[in-house]
Formats: sequence, structure tokens, C-alpha cells
Amino acid sequence: MKLLVINPNISDDVTALIEAEALRSASPGTELVVRTAGYGVEYIETRFESLVAAGAVAEIVAEYTRDGASIDGVVVAAFGDPGMPALKELTDIPVIGITEAALCAAALQGHRFSIIAISDRIRPWYRDCVERFGLGGRLASIRSINEALHGIASVQQDFKATLLALSRQAVTEDGADVVILAGAPLAGLARELRGQIGVPVVDGISAGIRMAEAVVGLDSGPHRAGAFAPPPAKSRRGLSENLDAALTTAQNAAAHDPARVTQPAAPAPAN
Amino acid sequence: MKLLVINPNISDDVTALIEAEALRSASPGTELVVRTAGYGVEYIETRFESLVAAGAVAEIVAEYTRDGASIDGVVVAAFGDPGMPALKELTDIPVIGITEAALCAAALQGHRFSIIAISDRIRPWYRDCVERFGLGGRLASIRSINEALHGIASVQQDFKATLLALSRQAVTEDGADVVILAGAPLAGLARELRGQIGVPVVDGISAGIRMAEAVVGLDSGPHRAGAFAPPPAKSRRGLSENLDAALTTAQNAAAHDPARVTQPAAPAPAN
Amino acid sequence: MKLLVINPNISDDVTALIEAEALRSASPGTELVVRTAGYGVEYIETRFESLVAAGAVAEIVAEYTRDGASIDGVVVAAFGDPGMPALKELTDIPVIGITEAALCAAALQGHRFSIIAISDRIRPWYRDCVERFGLGGRLASIRSINEALHGIASVQQDFKATLLALSRQAVTEDGADVVILAGAPLAGLARELRGQIGVPVVDGISAGIRMAEAVVGLDSGPHRAGAFAPPPAKSRRGLSENLDAALTTAQNAAAHDPARVTQPAAPAPAN
Amino acid sequence: MKLLVINPNISDDVTALIEAEALRSASPGTELVVRTAGYGVEYIETRFESLVAAGAVAEIVAEYTRDGASIDGVVVAAFGDPGMPALKELTDIPVIGITEAALCAAALQGHRFSIIAISDRIRPWYRDCVERFGLGGRLASIRSINEALHGIASVQQDFKATLLALSRQAVTEDGADVVILAGAPLAGLARELRGQIGVPVVDGISAGIRMAEAVVGLDSGPHRAGAFAPPPAKSRRGLSENLDAALTTAQNAAAHDPARVTQPAAPAPAN
Amino acid sequence: MKLLVINPNISDDVTALIEAEALRSASPGTELVVRTAGYGVEYIETRFESLVAAGAVAEIVAEYTRDGASIDGVVVAAFGDPGMPALKELTDIPVIGITEAALCAAALQGHRFSIIAISDRIRPWYRDCVERFGLGGRLASIRSINEALHGIASVQQDFKATLLALSRQAVTEDGADVVILAGAPLAGLARELRGQIGVPVVDGISAGIRMAEAVVGLDSGPHRAGAFAPPPAKSRRGLSENLDAALTTAQNAAAHDPARVTQPAAPAPAN
Amino acid sequence: MKLLVINPNISDDVTALIEAEALRSASPGTELVVRTAGYGVEYIETRFESLVAAGAVAEIVAEYTRDGASIDGVVVAAFGDPGMPALKELTDIPVIGITEAALCAAALQGHRFSIIAISDRIRPWYRDCVERFGLGGRLASIRSINEALHGIASVQQDFKATLLALSRQAVTEDGADVVILAGAPLAGLARELRGQIGVPVVDGISAGIRMAEAVVGLDSGPHRAGAFAPPPAKSRRGLSENLDAALTTAQNAAAHDPARVTQPAAPAPAN
Repeated sequence: MKLLVINPNISDDVTALIEAEALRSASPGTELVVRTAGYGVEYIETRFESLVAAGAVAEIVAEYTRDGASIDGVVVAAFGDPGMPALKELTDIPVIGITEAALCAAALQGHRFSIIAISDRIRPWYRDCVERFGLGGRLASIRSINEALHGIASVQQDFKATLLALSRQAVTEDGADVVILAGAPLAGLARELRGQIGVPVVDGISAGIRMAEAVVGLDSGPHRAGAFAPPPAKSRRGLSENLDAALTTAQNAAAHDPARVTQPAAPAPAN
Repeated sequence: MKLLVINPNISDDVTALIEAEALRSASPGTELVVRTAGYGVEYIETRFESLVAAGAVAEIVAEYTRDGASIDGVVVAAFGDPGMPALKELTDIPVIGITEAALCAAALQGHRFSIIAISDRIRPWYRDCVERFGLGGRLASIRSINEALHGIASVQQDFKATLLALSRQAVTEDGADVVILAGAPLAGLARELRGQIGVPVVDGISAGIRMAEAVVGLDSGPHRAGAFAPPPAKSRRGLSENLDAALTTAQNAAAHDPARVTQPAAPAPAN
Repeated sequence: MKLLVINPNISDDVTALIEAEALRSASPGTELVVRTAGYGVEYIETRFESLVAAGAVAEIVAEYTRDGASIDGVVVAAFGDPGMPALKELTDIPVIGITEAALCAAALQGHRFSIIAISDRIRPWYRDCVERFGLGGRLASIRSINEALHGIASVQQDFKATLLALSRQAVTEDGADVVILAGAPLAGLARELRGQIGVPVVDGISAGIRMAEAVVGLDSGPHRAGAFAPPPAKSRRGLSENLDAALTTAQNAAAHDPARVTQPAAPAPAN
Repeated sequence: MKLLVINPNISDDVTALIEAEALRSASPGTELVVRTAGYGVEYIETRFESLVAAGAVAEIVAEYTRDGASIDGVVVAAFGDPGMPALKELTDIPVIGITEAALCAAALQGHRFSIIAISDRIRPWYRDCVERFGLGGRLASIRSINEALHGIASVQQDFKATLLALSRQAVTEDGADVVILAGAPLAGLARELRGQIGVPVVDGISAGIRMAEAVVGLDSGPHRAGAFAPPPAKSRRGLSENLDAALTTAQNAAAHDPARVTQPAAPAPAN
Repeated sequence: MKLLVINPNISDDVTALIEAEALRSASPGTELVVRTAGYGVEYIETRFESLVAAGAVAEIVAEYTRDGASIDGVVVAAFGDPGMPALKELTDIPVIGITEAALCAAALQGHRFSIIAISDRIRPWYRDCVERFGLGGRLASIRSINEALHGIASVQQDFKATLLALSRQAVTEDGADVVILAGAPLAGLARELRGQIGVPVVDGISAGIRMAEAVVGLDSGPHRAGAFAPPPAKSRRGLSENLDAALTTAQNAAAHDPARVTQPAAPAPAN
Repeated sequence: MKLLVINPNISDDVTALIEAEALRSASPGTELVVRTAGYGVEYIETRFESLVAAGAVAEIVAEYTRDGASIDGVVVAAFGDPGMPALKELTDIPVIGITEAALCAAALQGHRFSIIAISDRIRPWYRDCVERFGLGGRLASIRSINEALHGIASVQQDFKATLLALSRQAVTEDGADVVILAGAPLAGLARELRGQIGVPVVDGISAGIRMAEAVVGLDSGPHRAGAFAPPPAKSRRGLSENLDAALTTAQNAAAHDPARVTQPAAPAPAN
């Protein structure tokens, strides 16, 4: 199995952290291709930065799927899942965000979970992500480092004691059954903290790799109907060559699939 | 008051429909600047198409705010509100989507509302929008045209009887107190249907203009703290010149605001 | 456009505050008629006081609509919206509460909002209002003055520092993106606080005026079907002359409307 | 135990139905005082009619509690619970609506329940009531007679077959575990239908009497703090003599209660 | 009326507390049979302990219903309602848990309620119970004793001051309108605390007895269709003799009921 | 990695179906131990049958963990997840139900999902499971075979056309982005249907195996605090020898863990 792992931030040193943890987490037989966003910001903390990153991630997904997928699955490796779930429309292979992966990994190990984040500003966006995934009712808290960072790649080293303390507070004060260490800059830290905070600790990158392996392994079949089928063919202009080619490929695959099913016809149930 | 109205689709004929209804709806003294997306698709039906459109809308917002806002407010004129609410971070002036505007206009006139859409595929994305805005509990139904369109600019002409029938079904079968005609291609149709379906009919474009006027008029002050303050200054690369300049402008405005308030320090409440 | 603005409290000095801010907020061309409740309490803090006020507000709405509406819209100018949304059934013109207006104004400017109130007792009722409007999921907090008031008309003067501090706590501790200053006794204070607390500040009275203008301007059409059509004609007794006449007028208007649509026939969807 | 049972409608023949079923349902030792609203409409179908009825119910509660409660509990005997929960503030004895009573009786006998109503128009208001009580997630459906009524007192006779069919549809099509026959005009019908529709059948009046007996029997103590304590003493004018006296009595009882507790001081949790 | 009251814990001294409060609470004419779980743990604090207790409670219910019910109703007398609502399938008589009974008693007396518990560990399970019953939106807080217990039967004596303080905090800090003293070990304490904390105080055991009396009195009819009808007859093995006989009895009663209604045929509504 | 797979039903032929699909799904290097419930019913359709099965599953988990875990993880292989999440308290290794696994697999591949079930009676219980897991907002529908089964092991053969039709209806009428084939008797059918219904198809057994592999692989650490730590040591009696030993083992492991963290001390947040 070959997974494309995309760092939606432009920071190469964070990509190195991601790659290291991804390699530690991958099952035997899983091959990894790790890429850094072609444009964007050093690390994503806001809804707008995520919007920008979404475009950059789409370009890389398109590059690897434009002539048919040369990979088996994609892991979007920034907490907050820039571009998700929209990116699932672009290709027939599974595209998994590390947030949704971590939420599933946490939800399978306890009932309520907390998220530990590297900046205060990042919290409302993370909360949005949990609510959009539908698990807002199981979120115990989001706690975050409340100090200026010295550098994005050294966060887990610089604030190890703080991160441990925040994790323990999530358990003892907020009622978390599981703690998620959020964000690629914390990749690998869970290995150090586990066993020290009283509950299972989930790393986004590991969860992303393991959950992508699981979903790719299930081989559930592509979207030919419904909201995640490729976008309908229509006039478009000004897209990058990769994006344009990837859309055409996806639309052709759907158009020529003998099992293609027509769209829902009944009124959408309101709730 | 000067409002920038952006068509996130690339279709100039839909821009013409938008402009016509916007002009009919605007209060005396409101000046309009109407722009079409520089790249993208003919009309947005899916989450991925919305993601692409979000980038195109951001470019236009940036162009008009990069050297300080030369306008008083922005209306994002595609149902589904591509790029929202992220775009609110990019500038100190109000940025309003026509979906959120229509939802407010409907919510102030009844309890439950339905949305009439031009394609089946579009419904899940619209439903997402209502749920993300927080009013999912008041959505009676989303009903849509279930036929191939002949052309995006003639939808309201080609399917007038269908759209009237769908609207009436929303009232008599789904319990809608208000009906929203969704999507820029239906701009202006509400003027024809009102009085024929038994409940108030809301047009997205009109609602966008009127609600933007109201919010601009309130002059509530800019975001200097919280989730909609400008993104923190940090390394970035590869953004368009407009976007880069607009971010710098926003960050400078925030940095030099004497009333700037520091970020929240307490753990985010879970729910 | 002519708006009827009703103070559901019996306090004339609060009516003066309302009128002053309403005049400052109204667009050119908007004419205001401001009235005080004919009976009730000095200021409404509880569900029961709101029930009493609802009756008093209904009388004034009836007075101005009993012979056909001599006005274009109504603003119910007490936070908590006494009598809403029931009062929307009584007349074909828009009837807007300042709470629902403020919630829309806040929701269009950020994601989560807090409400600043003048008394502890008032908070559960306010919370009910937010939840009934459907935006409970976006409420960051309700904070309130926790001291005895010296007089209802001087609250904003007497507690300015407290109100500023509560607003800032809502931002820094509760994660509010927007702050709503609730209650007619605080009318106008937002003009002083904006720019001082880091996020947009919404005044209920201004929001009520601006949102009423917007909705009246949309001219979406009357309710002839659904839950906000005039109550069905039937035996009644003991109502005030105004109320009786207003109901008859509304029922006649509906009965003679050629576009009258019959009621929903299908089972109500459960959720 | 002496219960005051109030018909919020002005129809004496419905009062007779209520009284008959209330007498059949009451435990030995329970004495009933049954009263009809002094003003209002023949039967309540809308939010506005409920608002009017709320005032009429308040007057009767006030009459029986103005000099100290001469009764042990109150049953508000119209589905939709006009004036509730506000009326709980007016007196130290339990005031129970038949809707909330029926919801509890249903919720204790199954998971999901349906409501059978006598008119289409009435459904949105009933649904509001279920949602406000907090059990909207357990509502399977609301089904209703879709024909003009011949007379409010003969509904259950005139439409017996329809009501049986609607009840069965609720079970077989909507998944109801329990069926509630809603509205005082259906009082007593549950006795005939039970055993015929496959699930427990709950009558609003019986449930109101039995639940009021249960709550009165619990003797849980009065509200001296929180949202249901008597409204704070303050200037008021224009209330009826009964209402004025009842408020004064309630306020005095609270003021002189040695166990009186001060109001909450902390910020209201947002959710 | 004869009620079977089951202590799902194995502690006989808690059974004595339960019996004493049940006798104080029962109406004249209500006869009680009180039983202790045949196996299990001293007191239930966790989901797993509740799972074990559910089996023990089922055995006792089966014993009393295996040859047709020799009783009129069952009260499951441990907070958290082990085995509920599943146990309602096992017999045609009402089976009521003290949690669901207390929630109804609280919900009929105020809007938001808090629960006071005897151990920290117990809180997540209690919270689950409230959410599963559907009233999570009305839960103000769960507060608990945060110290090791000296003995389960003396908790209310040993920690009276703590329990009073926790109850008052629920009112003044969490906004509770009603306080529920949770757990059989606190049976009877509400009689001492009422009048001291400012809001009504609900005892689980009293509520269980009173609500069971009310529901038994309503005589709403058995489940012959839907989710609470007896389980369909099918191969089974290894059940206890009592359970086997009780299932057979329930299945026979359903099979021979002339009013038996077939199962729902339509797709389950999603929400 | 060695996984214990438990069929909570007593039907050995369904165990064979489970084992076959589990073997097809397992990754290289995963060893399986498959066991059938020691007592219970042929197949679980109701809440009560699930309660009985929970006990039987607990016995098998206890048998394999009583002297320390001789396995790496457990898969509870009946849709509806009998005994979950309580069973997670009993051992330090992951215990995963096939429902929660399938929900995660579906949620990672689309937004809304439908469940196809083998009997009408089973639907309310399945719906409960989805709601308890927290993903009720993403459930499009539950559809089921509405005919008597000829035999539990031949369901997928006997009703293949029906199951295909139900799956397609879920997509075209209910808006499902993913379809889950629920229940061990359908094990393996997804392999035949995928590609025929337009959206990804998820098999509970495959999902259970793959998700268990992923979670075991993450090695997140045991519960020493919070709601899933082993139950506190206390008096107990009458448990089976296996269960008693397993509880003792779990409690000892927790007691001697140097990283053991004390329980939460703060009040549980209400929501």
C-alpha cells in the first residue's frame, strides 16, 4: 500500500516531524510519499489560513491522481483537516484527514476526549472541525499552550512540561477519557506521554496513517452517486493544469463506470 | 455605502442576474461594485467546487482591501457561501454570504424554512451550510429541480412552474413557514412567486444586499481578538500579490490598534 | 418606512433611551412611532414577567393594525422578545424582536457570541430565547451585573466599568467573537464600548431597527398558510376591543387573499 | 389533595370532557376544582391563541393563590401548555401542564412517542412544546385530523375511526413506542383505544392528574432561588387585582423564607 | 397496587434505606415488595458494574413475572437505571428506573436540574443516563463527593454538610432550578435538605415510587408492536429458568393478544 | 497481533460467516481467535436480547484476560455492540464493537450513511447505537428486510436482491454517501455489492477487524483514570469465576501502575 502524506503547512521541518512519526506508525508493507504544501503559511491556526492551505493540498492531490491514482490513499497531515471533506470528491482513493482519524481513534477508546493544541487562536477552528465531524457531543475540552512559540518545529521540546500538564488537566478537570495531541508539530510526542496521564493518548499523524491503512484495506468502492461523486462535468476556467486534469480524470472514471447510479430524487429530509 | 458583490461562479450571465436583483434590492444611497470570479466553474454544486470558488473569492476581496478597504462591505453572492466564514478574517469590513443572509431573513419571518435549489447534487452542501450556521433545527426541507438544466442563466425561466410547485410542496408537505429560493441563478424570481405560495419568499441576493446594508450600518467595530481577528503574522510564501498585501494590511491594522485585546486564555468550553 | 417601536416595560425613562438609540440607528427615510406598554412591570427579568408583557405588547400591535396596518413593521424592544414569535400571527407586516435581531446581527459577524445582561435573574430567560431561536450552539456565555441596580434608567451609567469588564471577560475567557449588550436599559452603550473590547459589539435596539428595516425592505409577502398565518376564525370572547378587531382584520385579509393556500396535510416530520 | 384543573379554552363542553376524565383518573382522596378560562378562544391551535390563553390561565391561578394557596396543585388542561413554564413562578405549589405530564408518562413507557392532534394547524405549536421540554429527540411524529371539525366537543366521536387509524400509522410507519392523544377535546378517548393500536396510549388529562398527584406528593419544596422563584418585587401597574395580589403574596413568601438563597453569581454556562 | 422495588446492588443495608424511604413515599393502598440483587457489587459506579447489575435485576423481574405478573409495576432502585430501558420488553407491567423517574419529577418542577452524586467516578455514567433519556439539554451539572466513603450505608450521615454544600453550589453556581439527590444510598436525605437550598429537592427513591404509581395508575396498555414488545420467539439457550420462563410468558401473551399489530414497515426516519 | 472475535449470538453458522469474513479482512500477521456466546439467543434484535448477550460476551472477554491478556484486542461481532462501551473497563487491551468500527469506517468515507438491517424490529436498537456513539446527526436512514427470515445463516443468500434494492434506495432516496451492511449474518456481502450501488459499502466484520488492528497498532496506553479505568475494588459476590478473576486482574494492574492518576475533581460540565 502506498500512501501520500501531505503537510498543508509550508514548514519543511514540520514535514520532517510528520515523516518520522509516519514511518514509525506505518504497518509493514506500507510505503509513504511525503510532500509539503507548495504555498501557504508556516503553520495553520485560523479558518482563513486553512482555506489557503486547502487549495495547496488540492494541487498535490491532483498531481498524484491526474492520470489515475498512482497511490492508494492520501493523508492530509494538519490538524483541522484543510480542504476536507471536499477533497474526497477529487479522487476515487480514500483521502483522510488526521483530525477525523484522531477523532475516530479516540472515539473507539473512550467516550469523551480532549484536544491539546499549540496555540489559543487555533482552538475555535479545531472545535468547528469536531462539530462538523459530528462528535461535538463527545468533546470534553480543547486546551492549548498560552505562550508565544519559539519555533514551530521545536514546540514539543520547548513545552513538554506544559503539554503534559495540559493533558493531565484535561483528564482530571475536564473528564477526558482519551487525550488527542493535535497538530503535526506535536507528531511523535504521544509516544513519550503515554502512560503518564492516566488515559490513552492519540497522535494525529499515527492515527492518520493507521486509519488510512484501515480504510484503504477495506476497499469499500468509489463514489459514483451522492455528495462525494466527482463534480459534474461543466464549463470551468483558470484552474491549474494539475487540478484541471484531475477533475477530468475523475469525471471520466465516473462517466464510464457501468455501475453509475443516478442522483437522489426525493426531497432531502430536513434533519 | 459601497458594497462589493462577488459572483463566485465564472458565469457572466449569472453575474448579470445578480447585478439586476442587487440593484432592485439596494436602498437609496447604496452603491454596488459587482465582480465575477476570476477562475472556477460555471456554477457551484459541490463541496469541492465551493473550495475552488473560495480561493477565487478571496482574491477579489483581497484586491479591494489590500491597501485598506475601498468599500464598506462585501456580499458573497453564491448560495453555499464559498469561503465563509473564513473570509471575515481578511478584512475589517463586514463580509456577508447570501446563504447566511437568507437564513437570517427567513428566521426573522417564521420558524421553519425550506430551501428550493436548482440541482439534486447541490442539496447536501446546502444542508451543511445550514447546519454550520447553527439553524439546522429550523430547516423544514431542501427541494430541488430533478432535471438536467438547459443553461444556467435561464433556469428560472425554464423551470418556473417546477420551482413554484416545489415551493408549494415545501409549505404544504414539509411545514415551511418561509421559502428561500437558493442560488444566484434564481435571483429575482422571488418577486414573481411571492403571494403565490402562501408564505414569505426570500431571495438570496436581496437578502444579501439588505443584510449587508444592515450590518454595515450597525458599525459594530472590527475583530482585534478572537477567532475572526486577522491571522497572526508569520512566515508565508507563494500567495498572490493581492492576498499577500491584504494579509499584511489586516495584520498591520490589528497590530497598531490601541484597543487590541489579547487572546482568550482559558480552556475552551467543550460545548 | 414607518416602524412601531414598543417598549414592553412600563418605564418611560427606558422608553426615552430606546427612542434616542432608535433615532440614531434608523436609516434616512425611516419614521419611528415609539410606545410604552400600557401595563406590566418596570423591567422584565423573568418568564412570568415576559408573559405579562406579551399581553401588553399584543394590545399595542393590535391598536396599530386593527383597521389595516398603518405602519410598515414593528420592533418589540425588550430583550427576551416578549410575545414572540406568536405576535407574527397577528398582522401581515413584519414583527421583529430585538433579541432575534441582535442574534442575527451577531451571527453575521462571527461564530460565537456572548450576551451581557443587567441582572443575574434574567439569564435563564435569555438563554431560553437563544435556544428557541435555534442558535444555542453558538452562545459562548451570558454574563451579568451581580449587584442591585440603583435605577433602571441609569444602569449603563452606574455600571459602565462593570459592563466593560464583563464584555472583555466574554471575549478572553468565554471565546466570544461578538458581544451583544442586552436589554433596552443598555440602549446606546455599544457606541461607547465598541473598539474597546476587541470584537464587534451589538446593541439590541440598533439591531432591531436595522434588521426591521431590512426585512420590511425585502417585502417577502404575508403568511397565508403555515404556522404564522392569522389564527383560524372561531368563537372567542372577552378580548379587548383592539385585539378583537385586529384578529378580525387579519382573518379577513387571509380569507379574501386569492393566493390563500391550504394547510399542510402530511404528517409532521419528527425532527 | 386538592387540584385546580384549568381549561384554557372558553368552551364549557370541553371543560365537561376534562372534568369527566379527570374524575375517572384521580386517585382516591384527590379533590378537583375545575375552571374554564374567563376569556379567549373556543380551542387553541396557534402560538398567538396560546399567548392569549396564558393570560387567562394566569388570572385563575392568581385567584386561587392570591391569599396563599387554597389548593395543593394546578393542572393546565390544554395541550401546548399555555403559559408554561412561566406560571410556575407565580405560586409555591406545583403547576403542571398536560403536555409535559403526557411527555413524561410516554417517556417512562417507551423511547419514541407520537402525538395525535385534532388539527393540522396545531402541529407546529405542539412540536415547539416538545422541543422546549427537551424531548424533541424522542418525538416520532405528530399526526393530525385533516378535515374541518363539526364541533369541538364531538371531535372524538366524529373522528374515532380517523384517530384510531392515525394512531396505528404512528406505530407502524413512524416507529412510535407510545401514542399520546393530545388535547382536551380527546379526553377519555385513550380508554377506548388502548389495546387496539399495539402500544401504550396516553391521555393528556389523565397524565396531567396523575403526574400532578405524584409531584404534589413528593413535596419537594418551593423555589426561593433560581429561575422559578417569584419575580423580584418592583414597580408594576395595570395588572388585575388577582394577579397583583398573587404576585405580592408570592414575593412576600419568598422574602420571609428563612432559607432564602441568593441568586447565582457565576457566568451562565453557554450550553 | 403492588410494586416490586429492586436494589440492583448487593448491599442489604442500602436495601433497608430504600425500603424505609419507599414506605414513607408510597401512597395509601400501595404495597411494596423489596428485593436485593442476587449477585453483583456493593454499589454501582461504572458502566461495567451497571452491566453486571442489569443481569441481576432481570433475574428478579423474571421471577415475579414468569408465570404472569404477580405485581403491578417494578421500580429499579439504583441511580443509572441498570438494564433500562431493555427491561421494559420483559413484561407487560410498567418497569420504571429511579433515574428516569427523578428526571421527570425534576423536569416538571423547573427547567434545569443538577444531580448530586456520591462519587466522582459515577458521574460519566450518570451523564450518559441523562443524555440517553433525552434531557441532556436541561442538565445544569453533576456534582459529587470527592472523598473516599467510609461505608455505603452511612454516606448521607457522614457527608451531610458536603452534600448540602454541593446542592447549594448547583443552585448558585450552575444555575439549577431543581436538585436531584442521586443514588439509593442517599434515600431519604431530600426530606432533610428541602427548604435549605432554595429550590425543590428530588429523591430518587420517592420519585421512583410516585412515578411508578402514576404510570401504573394510567393503565396505558401493553406493548404488542414497536421496540418494547416482547422479543420475538426464537432459539435460545443457557438462560436461567426464571428468565426463560418469563420470556416465554411474555411471548405467549403477545402472540395471543387479539390486538397484536404488525411491525413498522417504512424506513426509519434518520433523525 | 492476536484478536479475539466474539459472536454474541449462539448461532454457530453465523460464527462461521464471521470467521470467514474476518479471515478475508485481516492483515498479514493478524491471528484470530473466534468464539461463540456461551448462552443467549439465535440472533439479537432487541435491547433486551442485547442485555443478555452483553453478559455472555463479558464472560468470554474475562476468560481471555483473567490472568492478564493473552490477546491484543477484542472484536465484539454483533451489530448493536452488546455490552459496549462498558466492556472497555474490563481489560487494558482495546475492545471494539463492529458497529462503532463500521460507523468510523463510514464517517471517514462520506458524510451521511445508511444502515441496512435484516429485520424491522432491529432498527430502533441500531438507531440507539448510532445516537449513543454521537453520530446520529450523520445517519441518513436505517432500512431493513420486511419479511420473515428462512434461516439466520442464509439471509444474505435468500434476500440478496432485496438487500441490493434497499442499499440503492438508501442512496437515491435517503441521501446516503456510504452504506453499512449491518449484522454478522451479512458478513461478506459487501464484497459482492460494492460497485453496484454507487457509494462505498461497509461490512461490519471487516470494519471491526481493520479498526481493531488500527487501534491495537496505535498502542495508546491503558485507562488508569476516567470513566474507563477498571471499576474500583469493592465488595462483590456471585460473579462467575472468570469475571471475578478478570476484575481482580484489572484492578491490580491499575493499582500497581506507577502512572496511576487520581480521578477528576471538578464538577462535570453539564453539556
